[in-house]
Amino acid sequence: MTRINEGYRKLQAGYLFPEIGRRVRAFQEQNASAKIIRLGIGDVTLPLVPAVVEALREAVDEMGTPQGFRGYAPDQGYDFLLEAILEDDYRARGVALEASEIFVSDGSKQDSGNIQEIFGPTCRIAVTDPVYPVYVDTNVMAGRTGAAGALGRYEGIAYLDGTEANGFVPGPPAQRVDLAYLCSPNNPTGAVATRAQLEAWVAWARREDAVLVFDAAYDAYIQDPALPHSIYEIPGAKDCAIEMRSYSKRAGFTGLRCAYTVVPKALSGTTATGERVPLRELWARRQSTKFNGVPYLVQRAAAAVHSPAGRKQTQEQIAHYMGNAERLRDGLGAAGFSLFGGEHAPYIWMRTPSGLGSWECFDRLLRDAHVVTTPGAGFGACGEGYVRISAFNSRENVDEAIARIRRAFGR
Amino acid sequence: MTRINEGYRKLQAGYLFPEIGRRVRAFQEQNASAKIIRLGIGDVTLPLVPAVVEALREAVDEMGTPQGFRGYAPDQGYDFLLEAILEDDYRARGVALEASEIFVSDGSKQDSGNIQEIFGPTCRIAVTDPVYPVYVDTNVMAGRTGAAGALGRYEGIAYLDGTEANGFVPGPPAQRVDLAYLCSPNNPTGAVATRAQLEAWVAWARREDAVLVFDAAYDAYIQDPALPHSIYEIPGAKDCAIEMRSYSKRAGFTGLRCAYTVVPKALSGTTATGERVPLRELWARRQSTKFNGVPYLVQRAAAAVHSPAGRKQTQEQIAHYMGNAERLRDGLGAAGFSLFGGEHAPYIWMRTPSGLGSWECFDRLLRDAHVVTTPGAGFGACGEGYVRISAFNSRENVDEAIARIRRAFGR
Repeated sequence: MTRINEGYRKLQAGYLFPEIGRRVRAFQEQNASAKIIRLGIGDVTLPLVPAVVEALREAVDEMGTPQGFRGYAPDQGYDFLLEAILEDDYRARGVALEASEIFVSDGSKQDSGNIQEIFGPTCRIAVTDPVYPVYVDTNVMAGRTGAAGALGRYEGIAYLDGTEANGFVPGPPAQRVDLAYLCSPNNPTGAVATRAQLEAWVAWARREDAVLVFDAAYDAYIQDPALPHSIYEIPGAKDCAIEMRSYSKRAGFTGLRCAYTVVPKALSGTTATGERVPLRELWARRQSTKFNGVPYLVQRAAAAVHSPAGRKQTQEQIAHYMGNAERLRDGLGAAGFSLFGGEHAPYIWMRTPSGLGSWECFDRLLRDAHVVTTPGAGFGACGEGYVRISAFNSRENVDEAIARIRRAFGR
Repeated sequence: MTRINEGYRKLQAGYLFPEIGRRVRAFQEQNASAKIIRLGIGDVTLPLVPAVVEALREAVDEMGTPQGFRGYAPDQGYDFLLEAILEDDYRARGVALEASEIFVSDGSKQDSGNIQEIFGPTCRIAVTDPVYPVYVDTNVMAGRTGAAGALGRYEGIAYLDGTEANGFVPGPPAQRVDLAYLCSPNNPTGAVATRAQLEAWVAWARREDAVLVFDAAYDAYIQDPALPHSIYEIPGAKDCAIEMRSYSKRAGFTGLRCAYTVVPKALSGTTATGERVPLRELWARRQSTKFNGVPYLVQRAAAAVHSPAGRKQTQEQIAHYMGNAERLRDGLGAAGFSLFGGEHAPYIWMRTPSGLGSWECFDRLLRDAHVVTTPGAGFGACGEGYVRISAFNSRENVDEAIARIRRAFGR
């Protein structure tokens, strides 16, 4: 009689993407000849760029020699990568950080799921809705919530509605919250927070002595140079914000795995007796105890993304995906679909036609257009009535998908 | 005022290996010319074998082409690797498992640290002492223990003494325990459990309806063909045991990162109302929510370990390390040091000479022999009075270390 973690029993259905995978497989088995176009899960489609491939080749060769072999990586990452991050992602934007504040990891999904571990069990969480499910599910698993209600919302979590009225960028919560997750550019809505909106969030966190978890996994898709990429471009953010960045979408690393999390030294939480404890120390302890570093060759590959050639080549890939997003906006927009996002993010957030439910719309697009999308309801109550369309595909498939979606709805 | 997880405040000092690293760096800074030989942290020293390098090269080339590129990996691992594991590690030893019971991961450290998440907060834990610190620390972080007492033992954990009298393989606990961690071949003592000892553990777990976490990260070092490699070679183990295996020490993957965990379908835990829940479902949910797969090229590398050439080449590396272990046993044994382990594991467990404390012995070996070991006390109260010596190094360095250790103690 070993008791299980009953937090898991509160989770609504499966994690979203495995559920989509099951429906797509079932459809494909029934319709073997259908040529399905996948604009669902946000997975990149272009191969690794030459600069990354070259770095991988060199690192593989090194690992095969006695002189070049590397075993366990340093806890927080190799200096060559930390330095490239500090220079390219921060100093170049006027942000001064130290290497000890950067933690290289195998993914922002992992980091955004694990970060809650360093906080107390009674911390009150806020998320925007729609939301990347990992933020919510990991807190449910950790026992910070009650059961889910009729809307699929968990008791004890503060949901901040993202709506057409607020451009899908809700402001900070009115009620007391200890920890808020904010993703910008947003997955799933494709909305991006302006500097003024980020300033409001930082002001809130400082005023409330709360912690802001800023997930910037899609920052490379920002097109407007005036928009901040890092929360640390906002003065005062180092006192209140943790930031996550990823190579997955920036450089096609979904199958290679590299990301990093920033926990500034100035950031702290409190004990029951009110003592302040630097969160950086807790995260360092968490990572050194439960993680064992990113492969040397993957860190070399990530560093190559920061080289002049790597930057140029990955920017071309992003331009390709953003070109797809533009075609989706133009092609579906011209046909009268209501679309959001896709300007600074690889996701289009589409209002479902004819008032369809979002799983209904998902099923209909799969059945009639053989196009996989992601039902908005999978991201929360406010996602009902929307589907997410990913721009990660070939130009040809995107054009074909646009035509098929229009036909499926007689437009 | 965001509250931290106060479990972290109960942890004794830093995680062991960073602390050793700090002492070694401090010594090296004071003694720049000292040629330090590292037999401390269990990190491999030989380069990746040719079969693995070749597989990595091919996979890197694939990842650079539109046809060969792979994004997110399947949740539990690629079929080619799962099938190789099922055949090579299990069917070949008479054990039938299914692919859905195998979860490929980026390390046994991660898996053995994360596995406790699927169990209830009040589960009572048993560990052997000395113990791999991750089992204990992750349960302390999760709040399953009280404070540490005078011996550094946490209130609420059942410690099973590993002593010279029981050959460092304690039997199952006498008191009620929900979850027990057993590592064989053992890190740090190098002891290996016999079939009869494993049978006793499985019989205990079945009788008590408890869960056994069997960490077999070092199974490739077993020399006696009569000794089990897998807990599932013991009848009935699929009802009560989770198993972890790793490529780190088997194939020099400490800097490449690949391992796997087996959670059989027959294994279950209970809810508060007594309902049985398959643990496999919980672990699958945990991994699909908080993990994003092992890089394709690393999975290809792991599969190459199972090829005829990969098996032969990695076995030669293991023979090299075990040759080192034999020299350590012979060379230090002849000088009158009391030694254990090192026969089916790459670790020698040495009783400290002259009744030295284990950190004292560590410091003395560092200062007088310029040899890094691991103080046994870092692995628990029963480790006091021992140091762990790793066989991971060149033959030349091992021979030199033997001579220096003898000199340091005037033997």
